[in-house]
Amino acid sequence: MAGQVGFIGIGIMGLPMAKNLVTKAGKKLVVWNRSQERIALLQGELADEAAQVEAAESPEAVVKACDVTFVMLTTPSVVRSVLFDMPGAAIHGVSSGKMIIDCSTITEEDSRASYDAVKTAGGSFLEAPVSGSKVPAETGALIFLAGGDKDVFDEVVKQKMFDVMGKKSIFLGGIGAGARMKLAVNMVMGSMISALAEGIVLCESNELDPAEFLEVLDLGAMANPMFKMKGPNMVQSKRQYTVNFPLEHQQKDMRFALQMGDSSATPMPVAAAANELFKAARAAGYDREDMSAVIEALRKRNE
Amino acid sequence: MAGQVGFIGIGIMGLPMAKNLVTKAGKKLVVWNRSQERIALLQGELADEAAQVEAAESPEAVVKACDVTFVMLTTPSVVRSVLFDMPGAAIHGVSSGKMIIDCSTITEEDSRASYDAVKTAGGSFLEAPVSGSKVPAETGALIFLAGGDKDVFDEVVKQKMFDVMGKKSIFLGGIGAGARMKLAVNMVMGSMISALAEGIVLCESNELDPAEFLEVLDLGAMANPMFKMKGPNMVQSKRQYTVNFPLEHQQKDMRFALQMGDSSATPMPVAAAANELFKAARAAGYDREDMSAVIEALRKRNE
Amino acid sequence: MAGQVGFIGIGIMGLPMAKNLVTKAGKKLVVWNRSQERIALLQGELADEAAQVEAAESPEAVVKACDVTFVMLTTPSVVRSVLFDMPGAAIHGVSSGKMIIDCSTITEEDSRASYDAVKTAGGSFLEAPVSGSKVPAETGALIFLAGGDKDVFDEVVKQKMFDVMGKKSIFLGGIGAGARMKLAVNMVMGSMISALAEGIVLCESNELDPAEFLEVLDLGAMANPMFKMKGPNMVQSKRQYTVNFPLEHQQKDMRFALQMGDSSATPMPVAAAANELFKAARAAGYDREDMSAVIEALRKRNE
Amino acid sequence: MAGQVGFIGIGIMGLPMAKNLVTKAGKKLVVWNRSQERIALLQGELADEAAQVEAAESPEAVVKACDVTFVMLTTPSVVRSVLFDMPGAAIHGVSSGKMIIDCSTITEEDSRASYDAVKTAGGSFLEAPVSGSKVPAETGALIFLAGGDKDVFDEVVKQKMFDVMGKKSIFLGGIGAGARMKLAVNMVMGSMISALAEGIVLCESNELDPAEFLEVLDLGAMANPMFKMKGPNMVQSKRQYTVNFPLEHQQKDMRFALQMGDSSATPMPVAAAANELFKAARAAGYDREDMSAVIEALRKRNE
Repeated sequence: MAGQVGFIGIGIMGLPMAKNLVTKAGKKLVVWNRSQERIALLQGELADEAAQVEAAESPEAVVKACDVTFVMLTTPSVVRSVLFDMPGAAIHGVSSGKMIIDCSTITEEDSRASYDAVKTAGGSFLEAPVSGSKVPAETGALIFLAGGDKDVFDEVVKQKMFDVMGKKSIFLGGIGAGARMKLAVNMVMGSMISALAEGIVLCESNELDPAEFLEVLDLGAMANPMFKMKGPNMVQSKRQYTVNFPLEHQQKDMRFALQMGDSSATPMPVAAAANELFKAARAAGYDREDMSAVIEALRKRNE
Repeated sequence: MAGQVGFIGIGIMGLPMAKNLVTKAGKKLVVWNRSQERIALLQGELADEAAQVEAAESPEAVVKACDVTFVMLTTPSVVRSVLFDMPGAAIHGVSSGKMIIDCSTITEEDSRASYDAVKTAGGSFLEAPVSGSKVPAETGALIFLAGGDKDVFDEVVKQKMFDVMGKKSIFLGGIGAGARMKLAVNMVMGSMISALAEGIVLCESNELDPAEFLEVLDLGAMANPMFKMKGPNMVQSKRQYTVNFPLEHQQKDMRFALQMGDSSATPMPVAAAANELFKAARAAGYDREDMSAVIEALRKRNE
Repeated sequence: MAGQVGFIGIGIMGLPMAKNLVTKAGKKLVVWNRSQERIALLQGELADEAAQVEAAESPEAVVKACDVTFVMLTTPSVVRSVLFDMPGAAIHGVSSGKMIIDCSTITEEDSRASYDAVKTAGGSFLEAPVSGSKVPAETGALIFLAGGDKDVFDEVVKQKMFDVMGKKSIFLGGIGAGARMKLAVNMVMGSMISALAEGIVLCESNELDPAEFLEVLDLGAMANPMFKMKGPNMVQSKRQYTVNFPLEHQQKDMRFALQMGDSSATPMPVAAAANELFKAARAAGYDREDMSAVIEALRKRNE
Repeated sequence: MAGQVGFIGIGIMGLPMAKNLVTKAGKKLVVWNRSQERIALLQGELADEAAQVEAAESPEAVVKACDVTFVMLTTPSVVRSVLFDMPGAAIHGVSSGKMIIDCSTITEEDSRASYDAVKTAGGSFLEAPVSGSKVPAETGALIFLAGGDKDVFDEVVKQKMFDVMGKKSIFLGGIGAGARMKLAVNMVMGSMISALAEGIVLCESNELDPAEFLEVLDLGAMANPMFKMKGPNMVQSKRQYTVNFPLEHQQKDMRFALQMGDSSATPMPVAAAANELFKAARAAGYDREDMSAVIEALRKRNE
């Protein structure tokens, strides 16, 4: 039991994270996912090491089988369901000594509720939402923004599990701090990708080559990996929105960040405008495209 | 006459650019500036090479004395005055073979007017607004965004003058293309610094350490030199707005970019919100601070 | 018991509403309010009819004493506390035949929760948030936006109680419809008062007489009672923000309306910008002023 | 000559204004319009009084034939062309004693230029942009916002010409004051119609009847003729955008108002957001629809 680690949620992010725990940290995993196909996919990618992944019949069973369990799910309502509400929810497996690390992006409120419930059941809890999407998850370059029980953080660090999944982990304070930091970072991301989108469309409408625009940006003080990665796919003639971070999730994070600003009376007009742009992109049907598809909300229709 | 180059405008940007032409390209300069003090300052910084800088009595005299003349001034109205309207304006020195390179940030409309006037007087004209502010000007790391007469561009390249002042020069097309590209780039800059400002203030209002926030940003896909340079000075306890690019000039560029989007019916709601934030910062008295002082428009009063 | 009506919440809105029930509909009231002073104030205003108002010791006692009970409280959290969570909460008085009408502005989610709880306890529930603030409450000119149990609506109509408190009551559909309609209306109100504020400040900054501006508005197609009432007090030299609707409550409604738009992917960029302006006014310390004090967020500091 | 009045520009606004001068003030008009058809249309509408309208061959000829000439054109560039640049421009007819009243919506800058040119030529000049669109023009219910030469204002008032075209005329001060006031008013109009549009779409997306929404608005403090006139045509099932004020002109006015705020460092984030919405509506092809078609920029595509 000491050697095996739990992992709940084998999605776009969860799969590569779990894979790194096996291949780079030599962990044996007990996993659960709503659909079995994703588990088979993980096992397929592991090839010779497929036996290191064992499917459990419920989140509860995962927690019972492991001291340390990671959770990586898509939305707050899914997190609530899997941790607390569904039959066989994770909480039923929690007892003294159990450690839960929730890497999902959730609200501070939900994170606090999870913390309280796990503590009440005798366990320990760490929120550790990540900065970075699919590619950093694959290359082990995530950043973990941790808040909650420091001893859980220390244990995961000791077992070098943050090391194989990420390039950095920071303990930011009590429960909620990780969730808040994640939102602050993703809010900047949403405003930045919107700013890039506006710049590209402005070029396209004004006889400027957007490829030269991206080159100029990349030469200057604003050069950043995100622009470099996403920019070329956003121009009119390409429009390839490989989904690293779905637009509806980006919009969700903008919304939560704005609510956080709202409760602290912090004006954030640029983020608010970007959020409305993401909503317009959702209204135009781009929910499940990559967040960089926000550019479509700026384009003339019928093009 | 062949060996000497004209330089009009020895301001925050012009001084280091002129200095690089002397020290790195070995040019002899004929210069004009509204106040003599700036010329003396340039000569003082050149020390042994001070004799390489000769002050002319008017812009007209500069152009008459040189085949190639650079112009680097602060606002469109100053450019208009110095090139066309003041006694001894530069245009009066233009004749066949004279080449004018305007590196100021001006509107496409003004740039076209300058182009037409210089062509009518028999000369050639290149707009070459720069991306980059004080520090890149000093280190010769500007990016020149050129539009207009290709032969002027080629001549400046041949004499390696773009090489010593910048790290890249791009010929973008006919007159106006350089001005438009500059605005598109600066618009993204204005939105990005505003997004950073909102993130910092959000942290400060929600018990998060803004220094950790900057660290997280710097580890991820949004890491960029501007955030790294300006971020640390923007936090509540520091507030050091070293002026690399004055806020009123940034706001001016946002405004021009928005007008460009306006005439092409390109919606740019994020830039528009950022522009209003810069206006609020101006209303709060931060015109002449660095553009990163935009964060003050988000802060509670009486703090 | 048939003749008496319950009223919970004797605040800015509740007091004049309760007063109208007594003076115009001849009702005997059983009331509860967190502070006793407000009840004394109500009795004082009723003079000869003071005996028509009896204070109960708890919300529960009000409901037990009356078939029909109105609730008019300030925030969702106060509503939750008084209806469900505090000792002697209203829900403990609910049994078969009890009718609760909640006139507070709350979220659809909270309204649904109240509905479900009251129904489970055997009672009936109507949400009836009002359009209109202090003055319309006094003059009996509120508009009731009702949703929930139609039989409760019909009973209140039958007893002519909406008639004496308001000029119109509309049954909009199932539970939640009233809350949603209220938010849609208040969102427009917040955007409109912000638009007026911007216009006034624009005049003040550009040598135009804001009084003439208000006169011109009042002559045209945009003339409306709110501009007429609030405009004159908003100009620089007056600045009299008589509190009809506190700014923090207006901002709260904007926020809820935006969340409603968010969950339906409805872009509302103008309301989002207005919301940020209200937040800036809160950051500047105007939470408890009238919502028209939003204009202060546009003004230069140190004036 | 004393009895006849000049009228340049027989467009959507000019035609009913000219008609009122004939039918209600008994004036004989000398008119010019770019296309002859509009003049024939005016004469057709005048029936028995068609002879009161005489077509001149140029703007210059109009001014030469009349002491007082009204100008009512669509855009600043058309105004510049007709007053100054085209062959037979109005300015060539100006001499001592000639009075020009420009009712077009133009920028303060253009208005000042017109003023200066007319004064230089010996004439007098009044800007008198109107508040109100097609219907008020027809019913003689415009509001004239005048600035410039007070004696021109007094003469037009004396001849009761403002009286028959409008319900109010206000002299606001020196040249430019009328243009600025017009922009301030139209800015509020643009923000208000956008706010209404957002409210309607919010209802449509959230199972609320937009007709009931309009009814509620019309009962409350925000009731205004514009909402009453335009609201019913904006709902999803109607979408009838009878053109009273073309969307591209509304957007133009928003832009000019924002530039005015820009030069006075007046933040106007709500107007800026509304302006971007109008731009999005233009990008979607609604330039020539009524300004109320701005609602289409909020609607889901493919509906």
